[in-house]
Amino acid sequence: MSEYSPFVQIASLLPTANMNQYIRDGDNPDITEERLKATFDVDRFTEFYHGGAKRLKSRREVEKYIEDHKELQDTHPTPFMSREELIDNSVRKLAGMAKYHKMIDMTNIEKTTYFLQLVHVRDSMAFSLHYLMFLPVLQSQASPEQLSEWMPKSLSGTIIGTYAQTEMGHGTNLSKLETTATYDPKSQEFVLHTPTISGAKWWPGSLGKFSNHAIIVANLWTNGKCEGPHPFFVEIRDPVTHKALPNLKLGDIGPKLSLNGSDNGYLMFDNFRIPRNNMLMRHSKVLPDGTYVKPPHSKLAYGGMVFVRSMMVRDIANHLANAVTIATRYSSVRRQGEPVPGAGEVKILDYQTQQYRIFPYMAKAIAFRIAGEELQNIFKKVSKQLRQGEASLLPDIHALSSGLKALVTFEVQGGIEQCRLACGGHGYSHASGIPELSAFSCGSCTYEGDNLVLLLQVAKYLMKVCAQPVEGEICGYLHKKSSNTISELSSHRTYSDHQIIQDWEHVTRRVVLQAFQKLQAESATKQKHEAWNSCSVELCKAARWHVRLYIVRILLAKISTAPEDVRPVLRALAKLYIFDLQVSNKGHFVEDRYMSSQQIDQLKSGISEALATIRPDAVSIVDGFAIHEFELKSVLGRRDGNVYPALMEWTKHSKLNQKDVPDAFEKYLAPIMEKIRAKI
Amino acid sequence: MSEYSPFVQIASLLPTANMNQYIRDGDNPDITEERLKATFDVDRFTEFYHGGAKRLKSRREVEKYIEDHKELQDTHPTPFMSREELIDNSVRKLAGMAKYHKMIDMTNIEKTTYFLQLVHVRDSMAFSLHYLMFLPVLQSQASPEQLSEWMPKSLSGTIIGTYAQTEMGHGTNLSKLETTATYDPKSQEFVLHTPTISGAKWWPGSLGKFSNHAIIVANLWTNGKCEGPHPFFVEIRDPVTHKALPNLKLGDIGPKLSLNGSDNGYLMFDNFRIPRNNMLMRHSKVLPDGTYVKPPHSKLAYGGMVFVRSMMVRDIANHLANAVTIATRYSSVRRQGEPVPGAGEVKILDYQTQQYRIFPYMAKAIAFRIAGEELQNIFKKVSKQLRQGEASLLPDIHALSSGLKALVTFEVQGGIEQCRLACGGHGYSHASGIPELSAFSCGSCTYEGDNLVLLLQVAKYLMKVCAQPVEGEICGYLHKKSSNTISELSSHRTYSDHQIIQDWEHVTRRVVLQAFQKLQAESATKQKHEAWNSCSVELCKAARWHVRLYIVRILLAKISTAPEDVRPVLRALAKLYIFDLQVSNKGHFVEDRYMSSQQIDQLKSGISEALATIRPDAVSIVDGFAIHEFELKSVLGRRDGNVYPALMEWTKHSKLNQKDVPDAFEKYLAPIMEKIRAKI
Repeated sequence: MSEYSPFVQIASLLPTANMNQYIRDGDNPDITEERLKATFDVDRFTEFYHGGAKRLKSRREVEKYIEDHKELQDTHPTPFMSREELIDNSVRKLAGMAKYHKMIDMTNIEKTTYFLQLVHVRDSMAFSLHYLMFLPVLQSQASPEQLSEWMPKSLSGTIIGTYAQTEMGHGTNLSKLETTATYDPKSQEFVLHTPTISGAKWWPGSLGKFSNHAIIVANLWTNGKCEGPHPFFVEIRDPVTHKALPNLKLGDIGPKLSLNGSDNGYLMFDNFRIPRNNMLMRHSKVLPDGTYVKPPHSKLAYGGMVFVRSMMVRDIANHLANAVTIATRYSSVRRQGEPVPGAGEVKILDYQTQQYRIFPYMAKAIAFRIAGEELQNIFKKVSKQLRQGEASLLPDIHALSSGLKALVTFEVQGGIEQCRLACGGHGYSHASGIPELSAFSCGSCTYEGDNLVLLLQVAKYLMKVCAQPVEGEICGYLHKKSSNTISELSSHRTYSDHQIIQDWEHVTRRVVLQAFQKLQAESATKQKHEAWNSCSVELCKAARWHVRLYIVRILLAKISTAPEDVRPVLRALAKLYIFDLQVSNKGHFVEDRYMSSQQIDQLKSGISEALATIRPDAVSIVDGFAIHEFELKSVLGRRDGNVYPALMEWTKHSKLNQKDVPDAFEKYLAPIMEKIRAKI
Repeated sequence: MSEYSPFVQIASLLPTANMNQYIRDGDNPDITEERLKATFDVDRFTEFYHGGAKRLKSRREVEKYIEDHKELQDTHPTPFMSREELIDNSVRKLAGMAKYHKMIDMTNIEKTTYFLQLVHVRDSMAFSLHYLMFLPVLQSQASPEQLSEWMPKSLSGTIIGTYAQTEMGHGTNLSKLETTATYDPKSQEFVLHTPTISGAKWWPGSLGKFSNHAIIVANLWTNGKCEGPHPFFVEIRDPVTHKALPNLKLGDIGPKLSLNGSDNGYLMFDNFRIPRNNMLMRHSKVLPDGTYVKPPHSKLAYGGMVFVRSMMVRDIANHLANAVTIATRYSSVRRQGEPVPGAGEVKILDYQTQQYRIFPYMAKAIAFRIAGEELQNIFKKVSKQLRQGEASLLPDIHALSSGLKALVTFEVQGGIEQCRLACGGHGYSHASGIPELSAFSCGSCTYEGDNLVLLLQVAKYLMKVCAQPVEGEICGYLHKKSSNTISELSSHRTYSDHQIIQDWEHVTRRVVLQAFQKLQAESATKQKHEAWNSCSVELCKAARWHVRLYIVRILLAKISTAPEDVRPVLRALAKLYIFDLQVSNKGHFVEDRYMSSQQIDQLKSGISEALATIRPDAVSIVDGFAIHEFELKSVLGRRDGNVYPALMEWTKHSKLNQKDVPDAFEKYLAPIMEKIRAKI
């Protein structure tokens, strides 16, 4: 059947039409036509994607709740707001949340997080650090006595907290933080001090204006000795008047690429005193006489980082899913170009170049989500072990979470940008929703660990494993012998999961071992740090391959558990993801003649075939992501496909349109033009 | 010599110190140290980069002029402005320009453009279309009589014009524009009409609020026949009151990723009448009785597109140069990490990963600029030929300009993003200047032709050339026989320009011919448009290789003309650019065993060596770009390297910092907190 046939008339007679809740009266027929083509049940896809019916039900409850409470919604689209209006909007919704705090349930993190996200969505993140950093750090680092004093107030809303670690001149290298906390045994107080401008706390969300407390990370000095960075619980504003306390200088750091509903702030201490008990003392302690007591287990703190990164991977994958939803739906209603003269313009989604722009990222959105979910599962396992004092899995999972965070956050940015480009000119308008999405999302490459720094950590771990073999799924491949020296791929259609993984293991092993050999060679003539530096580009590449292999493995495994009707299109997406990487990196696969040019050509055919397989299901796949319109915030990505009238509606929010003749014309141009006319 | 040696003490004794105008008292010693390492004369680099002493002098005149006239400068940094303030700022500066219009000299486009750019820089582009589209289109499409009537007013400032072609539902495919201009011979008028919302003119800069005229592109109907899209000169607002004329609906389209100082607008006609003479009639005409007269030469219009794209390539390359300047200077004063314990933190520019993040884009900024300059030179040649009625070179240059525009705009976005990431957390702040730069720049992938559409145009041209050989430098390689079947590269140090080009020609030829063969094979079984569509991903790849080969060739040629002291570092940059592409695409080079793994290893060594060669000159190279601080708009990229105090100064512009306790706290949070405290 031709891609341009009037399929809609036939399909509307088919029973599937009744199965699709996304089809409604008044929709753009171009998008309905797409939905009628679905080869699977969209709701079953959604259940699989969101991890089961129970989790989906809880999501839908949150959505219904916010739909029913106007106070939790934006008054008008955020891109029309000035920074002051954004902050007002954000704090207004926060006050609304205080009223509806029964939705905040610390025993159901999944639901609570979704509630917070759907109220604050992207640009309006004031207080996010209270929930995402301040409370969890307090929970894990405060002693039981401290918890019982501070936690109730922190949950009730009289304590608004943030987490202040980064300084203007210091990020990655914690040991060089300039802020000091010097213990004074006479008064039994710590003296917090910022010696220079570059030592100012800088960046923490809501530090500038709204928090009245902060957990401050400072280098601890006691008995004349530096014991390294430790966290302190510090009141920074008066609990009643909210005025900044004396001996503090703090404020807003100014506008950012996004997050402008939040007052990311700076803070400098001028010999500011806090009681001894305000050091968070679950793990290490300072006794009244100044004696420092070490933490029992130095690796316990890693657990939190792994958790945050596992959440991040899934969240960031979801950003990509948003962008893919917008680009796919819009491409199914935008018509441009007339390949057959007189036959009418075609949907841009019918162009192979457009499919190749969007579908690989559709595949990545799913692959990265699955990897993030799996990371959370492993984290739960590791946490259980940690509670039993067993930390052997920690290096594996720490490296994996670092690597996934680095790879996923970077690739998602590229994908969001491709989705923006796929929307043509309208992608540049805030009406698309993509500029806000992109700006919000791209910070993730830097926060929670700079991506290159993280990749080098993965590489460090891999180099250890190369030297001292370990077993297990994640790294076992490094010391496995290939059963074959060449790939057995004969046709992309019969390329088995087993063979795919074997080929990927072969290539990844070679890349990692080559980096290891290069490092050994360089180490023979150079100092250790110089050898490491001179190999670091190759080391990062090795780390990326290690992570990619993990994703390929986990993706194939997870898809084999999908419902039967959903599996074929998921397999097409997985093959697109995997083959595209193989073709784009064919140099690695043909090296040593492991694969032949003919085999690469097979993969190329596999890509073309996958694009064609995905095409009719594309809109239903993104429907299956089930992203609520509050989250999507996109005129182009509307469920109903009625994009053009909605674009015209959108202009009504522009303040410029409140007057026919703009003020700046009267103020600056009219007088000049009058003068010129007088001269003529 | 170790990278961490106290080179500064020695270097300050060298005579080069006196040659560097960028070294001044009070600078950050970390950046002075860099400047003292330069192996070349920075001013000589600048002259080479900017195309000679004369052009440089004219740039400096513009800079001095704006430095001397506060009315032409921003009152405070644009990221702190709301959209309304941005527009006010932009129009205020425009009014200032009207006062200083002697700087606008249409006989010196280079100088005029730089003046406009340096006054309006990035976010504030109101009226740019008046200069960049309205005036040039009038110049090239209006008849001499029309010109004499409209041009004086358009230059004096009583006519403010824009160019309105794109519609909400129509971009690339001009023939499907919905706006019609129907000739009425009775009244000798054209009736302009917008039949649907999707036919609304949409996007033109300053259409919504500030222009009083527009060149409207509409499908011309006369004597019952459609003659395709033509331009019309249309008054849209009253020349005195500035009110929108009756039978028009127009306004602002809302906020965008950038350009928010401009009122990109929409416009709908309701049977709006204009005199017959308002059709631009230099090329085609409608006679009083409605007879349509065809243009003498249908390809003449291409010239303008080529010119605009050649300007774009250079401009966009300059955006990358801005980002690279910021990232390089900042990396030379930011210290993080202590590879040798106790030796102090090192400059992040000393990490190989950081060099590899920035330097390839430094190379690209130069390569793309050179390619853009060369395109302008070819354009001048072609224009001369066109005036003599000769259009044979037009397809070559049209394809080349399309391809360069597509490749350069896309790669520049990736580069700006890498530079942002290279600045760590501060890259996310508007203080870095990179968010504004990136948002402004990335529209270029879509306007003046969507990149994929352009690449497919290049591919179409290449497929023609494959079928019917042409001679000449740009395409001759496609029909050349390789003198060797394998590369002769033995060491990256002796890899000659000749051999490099031979290897690149080999690979590009193979990629293009493979696409050609695939297209032929598909055409045997499919309709023409289906065959084309099914090969289009491969066709785009072929187009990219064709453009890359051109850049490699022109880069090597141009560098060989550089001043002797500048040449070595330029050669290192060129090698970095070329080798990095070869290694990243090694699959293409090792295919058919044209290159061996050992040869690829040679290129890898060449990359490491180039990074090390560039490292000491890095800051001086970006100094050599000679980007004025008005254009750079970056706290991180400051010439003096005093980044941290300047970051603290920057916060003073934040409106949030005008009050200690923010309004939203009083309004929303204080009442809630009081209630909670009352309960406790």
